[in-house]
Amino acid sequence: MSKKRKNRFVSRHRAKKSGLPPGTLPDLVENHSPEKVTIHVLEYDEHAFTDTVVEQPGMLSRYGKSGKVTWINIDGVHNVQLIEQIGNVFGIHPLTLEDIVNTDQRPKFENYEEYDVIMMKMLFYQQELGSEQLSIILFNNVVLTFQEVHGGDPFTVIRERIRQGKGRVRRCGADYLAYALLDSIVDTYFNILEKIGDRIEEIDDKLVTDPQPEVLETMHQLKREMIFVRKAVWPLREVVSGFERSETTRLTRSTQVYLRDVMDHSIRVIETVESYRDLITGMMDVYLSGLSHRMNEVMKVLTIISTIFIPVTFIAGVYGMNFEYMPELRSKYGYWITWGLMLTVMLLLVYYFRRKKWL
Amino acid sequence: MSKKRKNRFVSRHRAKKSGLPPGTLPDLVENHSPEKVTIHVLEYDEHAFTDTVVEQPGMLSRYGKSGKVTWINIDGVHNVQLIEQIGNVFGIHPLTLEDIVNTDQRPKFENYEEYDVIMMKMLFYQQELGSEQLSIILFNNVVLTFQEVHGGDPFTVIRERIRQGKGRVRRCGADYLAYALLDSIVDTYFNILEKIGDRIEEIDDKLVTDPQPEVLETMHQLKREMIFVRKAVWPLREVVSGFERSETTRLTRSTQVYLRDVMDHSIRVIETVESYRDLITGMMDVYLSGLSHRMNEVMKVLTIISTIFIPVTFIAGVYGMNFEYMPELRSKYGYWITWGLMLTVMLLLVYYFRRKKWL
Amino acid sequence: MSKKRKNRFVSRHRAKKSGLPPGTLPDLVENHSPEKVTIHVLEYDEHAFTDTVVEQPGMLSRYGKSGKVTWINIDGVHNVQLIEQIGNVFGIHPLTLEDIVNTDQRPKFENYEEYDVIMMKMLFYQQELGSEQLSIILFNNVVLTFQEVHGGDPFTVIRERIRQGKGRVRRCGADYLAYALLDSIVDTYFNILEKIGDRIEEIDDKLVTDPQPEVLETMHQLKREMIFVRKAVWPLREVVSGFERSETTRLTRSTQVYLRDVMDHSIRVIETVESYRDLITGMMDVYLSGLSHRMNEVMKVLTIISTIFIPVTFIAGVYGMNFEYMPELRSKYGYWITWGLMLTVMLLLVYYFRRKKWL
Amino acid sequence: MSKKRKNRFVSRHRAKKSGLPPGTLPDLVENHSPEKVTIHVLEYDEHAFTDTVVEQPGMLSRYGKSGKVTWINIDGVHNVQLIEQIGNVFGIHPLTLEDIVNTDQRPKFENYEEYDVIMMKMLFYQQELGSEQLSIILFNNVVLTFQEVHGGDPFTVIRERIRQGKGRVRRCGADYLAYALLDSIVDTYFNILEKIGDRIEEIDDKLVTDPQPEVLETMHQLKREMIFVRKAVWPLREVVSGFERSETTRLTRSTQVYLRDVMDHSIRVIETVESYRDLITGMMDVYLSGLSHRMNEVMKVLTIISTIFIPVTFIAGVYGMNFEYMPELRSKYGYWITWGLMLTVMLLLVYYFRRKKWL
Amino acid sequence: MSKKRKNRFVSRHRAKKSGLPPGTLPDLVENHSPEKVTIHVLEYDEHAFTDTVVEQPGMLSRYGKSGKVTWINIDGVHNVQLIEQIGNVFGIHPLTLEDIVNTDQRPKFENYEEYDVIMMKMLFYQQELGSEQLSIILFNNVVLTFQEVHGGDPFTVIRERIRQGKGRVRRCGADYLAYALLDSIVDTYFNILEKIGDRIEEIDDKLVTDPQPEVLETMHQLKREMIFVRKAVWPLREVVSGFERSETTRLTRSTQVYLRDVMDHSIRVIETVESYRDLITGMMDVYLSGLSHRMNEVMKVLTIISTIFIPVTFIAGVYGMNFEYMPELRSKYGYWITWGLMLTVMLLLVYYFRRKKWL
Repeated sequence: MSKKRKNRFVSRHRAKKSGLPPGTLPDLVENHSPEKVTIHVLEYDEHAFTDTVVEQPGMLSRYGKSGKVTWINIDGVHNVQLIEQIGNVFGIHPLTLEDIVNTDQRPKFENYEEYDVIMMKMLFYQQELGSEQLSIILFNNVVLTFQEVHGGDPFTVIRERIRQGKGRVRRCGADYLAYALLDSIVDTYFNILEKIGDRIEEIDDKLVTDPQPEVLETMHQLKREMIFVRKAVWPLREVVSGFERSETTRLTRSTQVYLRDVMDHSIRVIETVESYRDLITGMMDVYLSGLSHRMNEVMKVLTIISTIFIPVTFIAGVYGMNFEYMPELRSKYGYWITWGLMLTVMLLLVYYFRRKKWL
Repeated sequence: MSKKRKNRFVSRHRAKKSGLPPGTLPDLVENHSPEKVTIHVLEYDEHAFTDTVVEQPGMLSRYGKSGKVTWINIDGVHNVQLIEQIGNVFGIHPLTLEDIVNTDQRPKFENYEEYDVIMMKMLFYQQELGSEQLSIILFNNVVLTFQEVHGGDPFTVIRERIRQGKGRVRRCGADYLAYALLDSIVDTYFNILEKIGDRIEEIDDKLVTDPQPEVLETMHQLKREMIFVRKAVWPLREVVSGFERSETTRLTRSTQVYLRDVMDHSIRVIETVESYRDLITGMMDVYLSGLSHRMNEVMKVLTIISTIFIPVTFIAGVYGMNFEYMPELRSKYGYWITWGLMLTVMLLLVYYFRRKKWL
Repeated sequence: MSKKRKNRFVSRHRAKKSGLPPGTLPDLVENHSPEKVTIHVLEYDEHAFTDTVVEQPGMLSRYGKSGKVTWINIDGVHNVQLIEQIGNVFGIHPLTLEDIVNTDQRPKFENYEEYDVIMMKMLFYQQELGSEQLSIILFNNVVLTFQEVHGGDPFTVIRERIRQGKGRVRRCGADYLAYALLDSIVDTYFNILEKIGDRIEEIDDKLVTDPQPEVLETMHQLKREMIFVRKAVWPLREVVSGFERSETTRLTRSTQVYLRDVMDHSIRVIETVESYRDLITGMMDVYLSGLSHRMNEVMKVLTIISTIFIPVTFIAGVYGMNFEYMPELRSKYGYWITWGLMLTVMLLLVYYFRRKKWL
Repeated sequence: MSKKRKNRFVSRHRAKKSGLPPGTLPDLVENHSPEKVTIHVLEYDEHAFTDTVVEQPGMLSRYGKSGKVTWINIDGVHNVQLIEQIGNVFGIHPLTLEDIVNTDQRPKFENYEEYDVIMMKMLFYQQELGSEQLSIILFNNVVLTFQEVHGGDPFTVIRERIRQGKGRVRRCGADYLAYALLDSIVDTYFNILEKIGDRIEEIDDKLVTDPQPEVLETMHQLKREMIFVRKAVWPLREVVSGFERSETTRLTRSTQVYLRDVMDHSIRVIETVESYRDLITGMMDVYLSGLSHRMNEVMKVLTIISTIFIPVTFIAGVYGMNFEYMPELRSKYGYWITWGLMLTVMLLLVYYFRRKKWL
Repeated sequence: MSKKRKNRFVSRHRAKKSGLPPGTLPDLVENHSPEKVTIHVLEYDEHAFTDTVVEQPGMLSRYGKSGKVTWINIDGVHNVQLIEQIGNVFGIHPLTLEDIVNTDQRPKFENYEEYDVIMMKMLFYQQELGSEQLSIILFNNVVLTFQEVHGGDPFTVIRERIRQGKGRVRRCGADYLAYALLDSIVDTYFNILEKIGDRIEEIDDKLVTDPQPEVLETMHQLKREMIFVRKAVWPLREVVSGFERSETTRLTRSTQVYLRDVMDHSIRVIETVESYRDLITGMMDVYLSGLSHRMNEVMKVLTIISTIFIPVTFIAGVYGMNFEYMPELRSKYGYWITWGLMLTVMLLLVYYFRRKKWL
């Protein structure tokens, strides 16, 4: 069990050095190796569709002015300077930028005058369970998405859908796009939960057939993962409902119906997490009482063998004494009588154990 | 314990491939073996009654236009194309259709402008506990019901009642029919809970008389089933109360009184589930402490026999030594004195155990 | 532990055959032995008082028309036909009648236009804990009460009070009577809780002095009883507060003050149930750790005796070997030296156990 | 553990015989030994101060008519007749009087037209934890307090403060007095909690150094006491907040600020109770796993000694057999070879235990 | 485990002697060694900045009248007289002063007409976990902060930021300063939680590799610390949200956005505390079942060795008896047959244990 792995389950507040003014982004010196950031712009309406990779954040200012929907996806959030430039172009509040860059935020929905922010966690398995932060910023015609680059891109399918003009995404506004992105993230939770569900089943089988200590180890691991998932998933309900009920003109009535559906999925995710926790707790109990039961079995065998042989060994010991005057030793049938005595004792004890239902 | 069975308790989100646009039904290629779908139409008012089996969804468009109440029951929801056609006939929202086809929805009530949707789980025992999704769509004069075809038809009694004109169903509108369907589903929960209750009793008896590891296994199974039932039943309260309080003209005041009654039954179902969980947890504790107690008994027997015979076996061992110079061995009464010594030791130990209340 | 008893703790939904239209009373054929029903009418105002036993439900229609308060008590609810007739006389909704006849309702308050219904459970000990359903229907001037006939009549004292003109019941209206009945039922809960409290104390004493497995059995029984009581008592708060806050003209301001008092008692009942549950859980823990502790004691005795004698028995065994060439056996002091060795080993071990605080 | 003590923790509903009309005080016959009741009247304003002991309740009617604040303290509440007379003088509702006399009420705040009632529990240690009921009735200018006489007078300090004119009590009205009384009661809770806190610490130390069964006994006792305290303290929040937010003219704005402070202390009391419960539960777990650990230690010693000596004792037993033809016995070095064999076996076993980290 | 340390975890209500009028500060006699109090005044606006150490509280009255923001930091709160003087200068309510001096308040926000009060706990590790109380009083242009002097100054970074004019603090009003102070305290919680998180990881590793009783001891310690942290941190949410939503003109709209951010951090702190509690509980379970498992291992070894050798030792004992007539002893192959018998018994037992999967 490497130290590395478990770090994931103990959350930290790393990036922001306490002492820095709030709303200040940690500067480049601290992030000495600024990763490559990719800016991808998709502009579409019902009829047309353009797909650009932008090199300079400054160039973003020309987008969003046509009546088209513009989706700007930024891969990589740790190049602080660049994120700050993007923020300036769109007039994003410093606190929002800070939240985007510090990727251990709680999932949340926030309503600003100019835009709405949705922050969520994407879960993924790469050897072990991890999470990355996704930020969606919804302007009137523009959607900005910020991703870390660890866990794969959950948005490829939506991008494909826009390209091919499938579904209603091309016919609807930026709010529908925001919904579609949200929906695709919630869908990834079901994949993760399915994987965890498979492992729970596997362990549950082993519980009965082969309850090794590794089973305990895995249950402990699963329990920690559930705590991790739960933390990422629990605020989901209020995020989605906050978005749904936000009194913004940016959200159309028809998209609200779709959000109600995501809301429903969110609750289902949360309920599944809770019932998995219940299942694991139940398995823990079964494992423990299985241990007790096997201990009982071991003790019974020990007790039966010991208590059957200890008394007769004593009898044998008595007639192994070397006293000069021991009348029994001289008796012709002494040996056989002793055998009879010993067998009787043994049989009585066996009978006693039978009556106690130990045999 | 077959893999198959447990799959039921780990919920999935199978049908909808993430990447498909929301509101898109998975197409036929994926459902290569579209099951036979039966469409059954019942049209009635206080005086007349017709019963038809419809072959083509297109033919449904002629129903619901008379003043009569029309109940259209669709058995089988996995023929996606057909469901889509029905949806088109009645103007059902794509999201609703998606929910009908993907049969792992959370029970819910949703109010659209044209109709109300109630989604519930029907529970059934077929070798083991399973569930299927029932969807009820209430229009002004039309009620649509969608069933999967696993668990038997919970609506036969209502159909019979309509045929025979028993009860008030023939005299009331579509909302009363929707209520009656809802009520009949909630009634099936009581049957399931009664069966589980019987098994709890059975196990509770065995707990005391014959606490085998199978008891533990069954308790674990019951606990998992309760988690399963709870998940299906828990949203019931909000479903029914959502329906009752929905500000729709489709629901008459007199039917609301009946819904209050279903509401009550729902709460009773939920409370029963909760108290069963409590009972099972209590039984688990009793089982475990029973194990500890029996272990104690086993240990006592071992300890008593061992500690009584070990010291005297030592004494016998001493006089079994072959030293040339051992004065006791020569003594005439040595043997008898040794016996006396051994018996004394044994009696003292028995007395000690008596005082400790171990005997 | 008879099957009969435990049935009480696993609730059922027996009477209503699913398939019967809601609001339909199960007919007489099913209840082949209709019990004797007693109808008792008390009519009173501040000055006068009449007490009648009525044979025919039809005769009830003449009551309730004077300005007097009329209390009609029906003993026995399983004669469905008769209950139906009474219902017709007073214009009671079929659902209310169904609830009265099916005696496993959840305690509840329901407000109809013409009347209010209060359904409660009366708890009683007859060999073991049982419950029966009491229904109170409050009209403007008439109070109807329906009792099962198992648990004794909790209303005799109120009847006596009316007869003797004690207290304010004769000076007040039907709402005060309804309150008084409610109050007398809540009072019986305190009696039951006191009995359970006595048994908890008794067990708590035995926990320390004489922790037999029967103690566990009784705790399990108490726990199940608490689940049973809790289920009957838990909805009390909302029943009483529902009654208190119902916007009915049938409830006078002065009686509301009294209802506030019942409300208070209800909360106290519920709190007591909860703290009993806590007490029992605590006792369970003490019992279990007591078991562990006694196991420790047993193991210590076994270990001490075994480890003291096993090594010296080995030594004795060595000198019991029959090798021809064993120099020690020839030594004159060999025997005594061996004794010395054995005693030294024993003393060292005793010293070791002393230091480990096992002795 | 005397029966007497534990009765305190199992609450009862003794005084009110079910059957007595509500609002009726139990009459004197039942309370055959009416205790001595002391009525103490304090009348004060900013300038003057009088202190009287009143013999006859009738004489109380002359108080409260001047503009001064009058505090009437009644010690002893079981002389029902006298309490009734006092009630008549001040026009107190029969239900309030009943609550004063039946001293097992739940802490509560009740707002009547003429007065407000605060009922609280005072906790005290007299050998063991007990509680008595304190009732505070606040009129416009008059405060009535009713105490039982078991637990000492928590109000002496306030009386002293009034006498000496310390603090603001003399400058403020009756509502401030009521607040001051409330505050002094909440203060006593901190004393009790501090005592319990000391015992928790003491036990927590012993847990590690000397975990005797008495520790378990004490923890059980503490747990029961916490349930008892919790029941007395839990309603505190709603009592104080009910008082604070009551829309009465009897409560001035400036006193409300002070009540907010008491509110705060109440929450702190409740939180402390909860964290003590958590601490005790945690200690219980540590105690239990300590038991398991010690059991492990005992078992290891037993296992090591037994398994080292049992095989070699067997070897010695073999060469203690008396077969005529046993070639080893004749061998010159047989004895020494056997010793070597036995030592080798022993050393191998020791090595095995070392590797298992048992030694 | 010193008494001293644990005192921290058992809260007290020390300073306020019950009996003192509320709002009275304990006088100097009780605090015989009044600590040195340092008063530090920072006055700034966007352009200018002055930094003064004030000796006499009386001199404070000259501050806060310019339009600049004045931050007065008082180190040391136990010199009651001095605090009282400061209170008089600024017109602080006696209850607020009492809360500042009695440093075991619950974290809270209180809104007075002239000012707002925020009371919080600062957590620090000095050998072990401790806490000190920080009080922030926000006037229109003045911020007063009161610190105890145990845990280091969490405000140095803010002071530095003001000096250097970094961030927006110099451009904003007193409310932003209050926010910045609040934010810096919440930040310290993350440091503490990170330290605790490291220890949890460390223990979690040892759980598997080296589960000594010290692990249990540390888990118990961690659990107590979590209870302690939780108590300090739990009211955070309502403190911040109370401040955010307070209808005061002292709080500008732009600062409210920042408070929303602190709010978010608070919830994250609380969630982390909760998930740590879950982690520790899970580890406790793993530790306990690890104990059981190892006990099982020990018992198996004992049982295997004992049951293999006990029967054969009995056989050896039989042929060690000294009966004169024992035909086997004379047989030439008796010895070898006996060996064969013994080996057979041993092998059969080994085979039995193999089949039981004990070997």
